Amino acid sequence: MSQVFSNDAVARAVEEIKSGPSSRRHADILAPHIHKVESPPKQTLFQEIKHSFNETFFSDDPFAKFQGQTKSRKFILGVQSVFPIFEWGQGYNLQKFKGDFIAGLTIASLCIPQDIAYAKLANLKPEYGLYTSFVAPLVYAFMGSSRDIAIGPVAVVSLLLGTLLTDEISDYTDPDYLRLAFTATFFAGITQMALGFLRLGFLIDFLSHAAIVGFMGGAAVTIALQQLKGLLGVKDFTKKTDIVSVMRSVWSAVHHGWNWETIVIGLAFLAFLLTTKYIAKKNKKLFWVSAISPMICVILSTLFVFLTRADKKGVAIVKHIKKGVNPSSVSEIILSGKYLSAGIRIGVVSGMVALTEAVAIGRTFAAMKDYSLDGNREMVALGTMNLIGSLTSCYVATGSFSRSAVNYMSGCKTAVSNIVMSIVLLLTLLLITPLFKYTPNAVLASIIIAAVMSLIDIEAVILLWKIDKFDFLACMGAFFGVIFKSVEIGLLIAVIISFAKILLQVTRPRTAVLGKLPGTTVYRNILQYPKAAQIPGMLIIRVDSAIYFSNSNYIKDRILKWLTDEEIYRTASEFPSIQYLIVDMSPVTDIDTSGIHAFDDLLKSLKKRDVQLLLANPGPIVTEKLEASMLTKTIGEDKIFLTVGDAVETFGPKGTNL
Amino acid sequence: MSQVFSNDAVARAVEEIKSGPSSRRHADILAPHIHKVESPPKQTLFQEIKHSFNETFFSDDPFAKFQGQTKSRKFILGVQSVFPIFEWGQGYNLQKFKGDFIAGLTIASLCIPQDIAYAKLANLKPEYGLYTSFVAPLVYAFMGSSRDIAIGPVAVVSLLLGTLLTDEISDYTDPDYLRLAFTATFFAGITQMALGFLRLGFLIDFLSHAAIVGFMGGAAVTIALQQLKGLLGVKDFTKKTDIVSVMRSVWSAVHHGWNWETIVIGLAFLAFLLTTKYIAKKNKKLFWVSAISPMICVILSTLFVFLTRADKKGVAIVKHIKKGVNPSSVSEIILSGKYLSAGIRIGVVSGMVALTEAVAIGRTFAAMKDYSLDGNREMVALGTMNLIGSLTSCYVATGSFSRSAVNYMSGCKTAVSNIVMSIVLLLTLLLITPLFKYTPNAVLASIIIAAVMSLIDIEAVILLWKIDKFDFLACMGAFFGVIFKSVEIGLLIAVIISFAKILLQVTRPRTAVLGKLPGTTVYRNILQYPKAAQIPGMLIIRVDSAIYFSNSNYIKDRILKWLTDEEIYRTASEFPSIQYLIVDMSPVTDIDTSGIHAFDDLLKSLKKRDVQLLLANPGPIVTEKLEASMLTKTIGEDKIFLTVGDAVETFGPKGTNL
Repeated sequence: MSQVFSNDAVARAVEEIKSGPSSRRHADILAPHIHKVESPPKQTLFQEIKHSFNETFFSDDPFAKFQGQTKSRKFILGVQSVFPIFEWGQGYNLQKFKGDFIAGLTIASLCIPQDIAYAKLANLKPEYGLYTSFVAPLVYAFMGSSRDIAIGPVAVVSLLLGTLLTDEISDYTDPDYLRLAFTATFFAGITQMALGFLRLGFLIDFLSHAAIVGFMGGAAVTIALQQLKGLLGVKDFTKKTDIVSVMRSVWSAVHHGWNWETIVIGLAFLAFLLTTKYIAKKNKKLFWVSAISPMICVILSTLFVFLTRADKKGVAIVKHIKKGVNPSSVSEIILSGKYLSAGIRIGVVSGMVALTEAVAIGRTFAAMKDYSLDGNREMVALGTMNLIGSLTSCYVATGSFSRSAVNYMSGCKTAVSNIVMSIVLLLTLLLITPLFKYTPNAVLASIIIAAVMSLIDIEAVILLWKIDKFDFLACMGAFFGVIFKSVEIGLLIAVIISFAKILLQVTRPRTAVLGKLPGTTVYRNILQYPKAAQIPGMLIIRVDSAIYFSNSNYIKDRILKWLTDEEIYRTASEFPSIQYLIVDMSPVTDIDTSGIHAFDDLLKSLKKRDVQLLLANPGPIVTEKLEASMLTKTIGEDKIFLTVGDAVETFGPKGTNL
Repeated sequence: MSQVFSNDAVARAVEEIKSGPSSRRHADILAPHIHKVESPPKQTLFQEIKHSFNETFFSDDPFAKFQGQTKSRKFILGVQSVFPIFEWGQGYNLQKFKGDFIAGLTIASLCIPQDIAYAKLANLKPEYGLYTSFVAPLVYAFMGSSRDIAIGPVAVVSLLLGTLLTDEISDYTDPDYLRLAFTATFFAGITQMALGFLRLGFLIDFLSHAAIVGFMGGAAVTIALQQLKGLLGVKDFTKKTDIVSVMRSVWSAVHHGWNWETIVIGLAFLAFLLTTKYIAKKNKKLFWVSAISPMICVILSTLFVFLTRADKKGVAIVKHIKKGVNPSSVSEIILSGKYLSAGIRIGVVSGMVALTEAVAIGRTFAAMKDYSLDGNREMVALGTMNLIGSLTSCYVATGSFSRSAVNYMSGCKTAVSNIVMSIVLLLTLLLITPLFKYTPNAVLASIIIAAVMSLIDIEAVILLWKIDKFDFLACMGAFFGVIFKSVEIGLLIAVIISFAKILLQVTRPRTAVLGKLPGTTVYRNILQYPKAAQIPGMLIIRVDSAIYFSNSNYIKDRILKWLTDEEIYRTASEFPSIQYLIVDMSPVTDIDTSGIHAFDDLLKSLKKRDVQLLLANPGPIVTEKLEASMLTKTIGEDKIFLTVGDAVETFGPKGTNL
């Protein structure tokens, strides 16, 4: 370890130590400090509990606006907080509607082909995708608080739902499969609502950004691989989703299972889609080219197949989409029997993942336009939406990354764009679904591949690598978990790695040795500031975390280890031995009883070594607890200072602070 | 919120703002700071990973002593680190042996009656308690590093083991019950060894001190209540351990089940034991009175029953203890079949609890004598001890609170006192076990009650209440969980509450508004230091935690909320509006990619509000990551300062720092 002492300070200290016993100093050097460490104003137990309860569950202070209002005004505010549409609806005008109308039409043209395709990922018939895009956005428009999110089925949740459902019922023509899908959607809605009502929205923060990037990327690769079935026209395809099984399935079909007409159609349209995506990326103003290209693909390919009757040559087509609006699915929800627990489990998992995606999107756009998003209210909105959806033949819907971006870029102003989209979907269901009969599956596969490409965020991964290696690891863990095993395993890895990071953070906090920056009274980490000089006869350590049971023993041992190491070094270098240990408590925001006991133990050990403990800048809570535990007396009130500088001035070698 | 401004500073600021645009300041006030925020020396990825790996798993640097030694020396050091007896044995002398001999005899006289009694808690025959106290201390003496711990069966672990085993096999005369007990002991040993070898010792730190106090207290009450069976001579006693079932069992037997001779013997000796305990507490020098009193009780009561043949009048006696040393139990371990998974589960749970107790004791005494205890090596020692124990008819042993205290006070010097105790136990097993035939169960019950009393630590509970209300809650949760439900439930509650606290810590960190202490350049929390004055046109916020995915959104929102609240207040009070937000990063030890994104979002929001962001004192890791993510550039290198004072001096109203 590099040790830097300022030379004259050492000389002075040696002088000082030679000239008399250290206890003398105490009396005559004690400088008159202007400020002492103060305890905060006392709070009653009730105030204390109320405060931490509020910070935990109501940190956004949702009831502030109700205060001091009349009863009728309170009622209106209450209705508005459940249905924000009545709040922003008041200022709605034609100008805004123009933006919303265009955005709504654009996302509708994008979502119709995606809906049909995504429903297949969940192993459901295509109409269920369209149903979901009709009801869910309508409900959200009334209750949601994001202005930019576009609601509907999304690729990752569809795949996750499909995988989890297939684990329970492998035959998707079984009517129970569809019932279980609705049941899972029902419980996904319940889960989301419950999290919002109980104000437990912060739970989704436990899935780290890095883990989500990896999970999404892995899911995108898995989804793209699944599309090889449609793109290559393979008939006998594996039901597993891992890359090994899928590639084996593809290769084993190479001689007799691939259909060249299908491949030509698929690749041609994929090339077209990727080209439009590239154009849109290069020139942001042309984003609409990539937004409407899926619809163009569907129209062109459907016409092509209809005219050439390519379906007779083995090109798989959609065949049949039921016409008409959503039938009721109230009686389909499973509320008892053997599938109930599976329904709850699948619902909770897919509901949480859907929530993570929606909240991430909502936050991104809210930050871009600087409006605030109430996470808990958002969850209630999404939950209600899925609950109502499950009763009207929809499956789990959430905010879609790609469509929300298109919505934003098309100039949407409010959630009315979702209503416009919903109406377009209604008309589609009522009038034109039969026209999709000849749409080739290969085109749907191309649309999915093009869509999920944007979920693979290479730039984010590079940034992770640059900024935080542990985050990169979490990302890769989730990514490889998904592609080599399954979406559930990937998700599990993501959650476990996220938790491991939290646990590591609380068990192994950092400590730093401080030194004095020459010419100042500022004390900084000597590793960061090599110019910072240590004070002879003193060791200054900063503890960089609240001291809790999970780390109190480690911190105590670490401090003693710093002391031992420094003593060995200083003895070897003939520097004066350490008489004072200053612990800078600035970052120590809290201490619990285990922490107090660790300090007690530390004091005992220091006493044996003839080293005195000085504390610098304990915060309000720490000061209070040190006093409550009588540790202030044990340490000595005159040994607790406002700053490290004060402590050094009082007990350190003369003239250090000059 | 109380807002304190120094009046002339406000006046100056208003002047300042009137006199010209704020951008002007930047050029001409910029003070020449001596020190800028520095990045730490770059580390390679490998160095970085190696460092954090070492801090996590090898923070005690166990291999340091091997460096630069010859091969043969390394071998000796290796043997010594597995068997510390060869290290401290070198300096062993007669003086030390004298202390150890007396201590060994004292704890032997205490442990023989306790062993017989504790075995009953685990629903095992009395000889298994004695077996455990013979083999386990012997193994520990060679491998353990604590000098004061006394090894053997303990009350809480015996009860826990008994409860868990009974859940699996309710009939304890079934030979499988005994086999499962050995199997659980076997896996308890494996668990402890594995934790030590994998250096995962820090995992037991996740059980907080508060939770342990509550759990121990609850277990003590439960154990004492169980003794009502022996003390009152109730024959038809419930197998449940919760207080409701036990009291019901006791009352329903009041008319025909209580045996008055038993009650007289039991209460008389209980009174005697409690009196000696009281004497020992009042006069520490008389600790030996309470240490040998259980043995006196056993001898007197046995003689009494033998002479009066009280056993014929319904006084239950021990009846039979097998003579001779431990038989082998190698063939009894269950390694397949239906009980294997139960054995592993019970082993892991009881092994962890035993470990927690042993490590807590070891640490307490090590701090008192200031020697260091290697937690991981200790676990390997305890694990080996239980592994060998399980093959020689022992059940789970660990360090006993009460016997270790007696050992310490009797003047033990090394683990040799455990060897002495072990030899006494050997002689007991070989020679005098038949003499315990007439020992009345009521006396054993009294001994247990007197012993577990010391586990109820009222003082610790009061301290918890005073210092930390949340800790108190955790303690009470565990306590009531144990007494009203069962030991497992209490343990579960303790673990859950401990984890909830950690999660709360990482999701809802504290933030504070800082003000300037008059006459200094020190900035402190305005709530703790009401004299600290805010700077006009500036808001200074300190974030008191590393910024991770679990709290990044909360921190961002909280900062913006402080800003909004302050702006409303300042506008109402006609103070100048806020132009600069200073974030004091001193306590922010680390930031991950989610944190970087949150800062990005914060910058966007601040831009919309026309507020500039200044950072003060980012630590080494944060500086590095801000640079890696280009955020340093986005914020502006000239807006990152070494101290809050520097930031205020550069951008604040003129003369603030005078």
